[in-house]
Amino acid sequence: MQNGKLNFNNRRTFLKKTTLASAGVLGLGNLQAEPSLYEKEKTNLKLPKDLTILFQGDSITDAGRKRDHYYANDAWGGLGSGYVLPVASELLGKNPTSNIQCYNRGISGHKVFQLANRWEEDCLQIQPDVLSILIGVNDFWHTLSHGYKGTARSYEDDFRKLLDRTLKQLPDCKIIVCEPFVVKGGSAIVEKEWFPAFMAYQNIARKISSDYNTNWVPFQKTFDDALEVASVEYWCPDGVHPSLGGGYLMAEVWLDVFKKMMK
Amino acid sequence: MQNGKLNFNNRRTFLKKTTLASAGVLGLGNLQAEPSLYEKEKTNLKLPKDLTILFQGDSITDAGRKRDHYYANDAWGGLGSGYVLPVASELLGKNPTSNIQCYNRGISGHKVFQLANRWEEDCLQIQPDVLSILIGVNDFWHTLSHGYKGTARSYEDDFRKLLDRTLKQLPDCKIIVCEPFVVKGGSAIVEKEWFPAFMAYQNIARKISSDYNTNWVPFQKTFDDALEVASVEYWCPDGVHPSLGGGYLMAEVWLDVFKKMMK
Repeated sequence: MQNGKLNFNNRRTFLKKTTLASAGVLGLGNLQAEPSLYEKEKTNLKLPKDLTILFQGDSITDAGRKRDHYYANDAWGGLGSGYVLPVASELLGKNPTSNIQCYNRGISGHKVFQLANRWEEDCLQIQPDVLSILIGVNDFWHTLSHGYKGTARSYEDDFRKLLDRTLKQLPDCKIIVCEPFVVKGGSAIVEKEWFPAFMAYQNIARKISSDYNTNWVPFQKTFDDALEVASVEYWCPDGVHPSLGGGYLMAEVWLDVFKKMMK
Repeated sequence: MQNGKLNFNNRRTFLKKTTLASAGVLGLGNLQAEPSLYEKEKTNLKLPKDLTILFQGDSITDAGRKRDHYYANDAWGGLGSGYVLPVASELLGKNPTSNIQCYNRGISGHKVFQLANRWEEDCLQIQPDVLSILIGVNDFWHTLSHGYKGTARSYEDDFRKLLDRTLKQLPDCKIIVCEPFVVKGGSAIVEKEWFPAFMAYQNIARKISSDYNTNWVPFQKTFDDALEVASVEYWCPDGVHPSLGGGYLMAEVWLDVFKKMMK
């Protein structure tokens, strides 16, 4: 919103909005002759008529979602309180004439092989147009703390198989691979155990994103940059699970990637 | 965010951000010589060092929050999935060097007298610097459906007493009164029962906001305008409880009022 105007975003709506704004129907504030950069950015989004977006991952995606609130766009806890909620809220609030359906199927503690175990129900049957995956932190973490026997190699193999399987059944699905991250100094993180070992998993995710020509969300840099401004306690107290502020940063960076995809 | 840059908002941070951005530390994208209008709007916010914000109300504020997640800025469902979450997320994400504490104490079904019954614990002890109240829809609705015997007069009396009591104990508290609203055509609303009777409650809230020189959030107009663009099913299916998209509109309008307060 700029100067109190609600800016709805969609080609059809843009025309309608202009008409409504001219008539003062949508105008809560002053009209500007030229849209600002921000308005231009928003109105340049080209969304298809129907758009189903699936967010997959572990606890960072799950973020306390209510498992029995299973439907798209659930407004009562089904999308959790993490980055998915501000993403879905903005997409739905700004694009009211697109038929956007947002699902959250993140489950705490999951590793990539556990996504595979529930992929039929929790991805393929949903038939997403856009699939966003954030997975990997437990694939490493649980080797330290849960006796998990997986390796970077099994992470890579399982991740590639998951994308192959997805694209075989849903060849038009656009995929967003999110970088698994940890925030240094977090209370659950012993840095010398995590670095550089965990970077192998991050490099694999990045390489897979590149090999499959998917969209890449660089969350590690997001949090590295954010630590220059405020503490790990502020952004992500245990180093793994972001605060509300940290979730907002993730949402902004995710949306930035999404908007570039959709231009 | 504009062009991938994270814009942190605070006078101290603005200086720091400039330094960091010049050094490329925060720069995820191209630097611009002149900030956009959007960036200017954000960096003009003047927040105090410490800022406790309390959201009070009924189910619209509650929005499925987890009652046992009681602490400020809870990232696992304690703030619900309604307008409070995108508001708190943005405030925390954009203002990392302000000590912002956001509490949600909305409870489904509550009327203004029920806020009064729990005001000591759920407001005065929290000592908010900013108190946002959205109350009134049940004060009318429950006269139709729950045999509630309250009247517009008792709503007004109770509301004024609540503000008197708050300002007596917390004289520096800034108050935001949000307009109670219903969205016409919603499945739980019989229009001829609601209008014009409910408007008396809206007029009372507006008059109280004016009399107490508080900040006013015009939610009815927000939704009236939104209905020009998409259906009541899209924004607020039952006419009372907003969708995620509807919650986003509320958050944008609320933040617009807040930003004007803080300039």
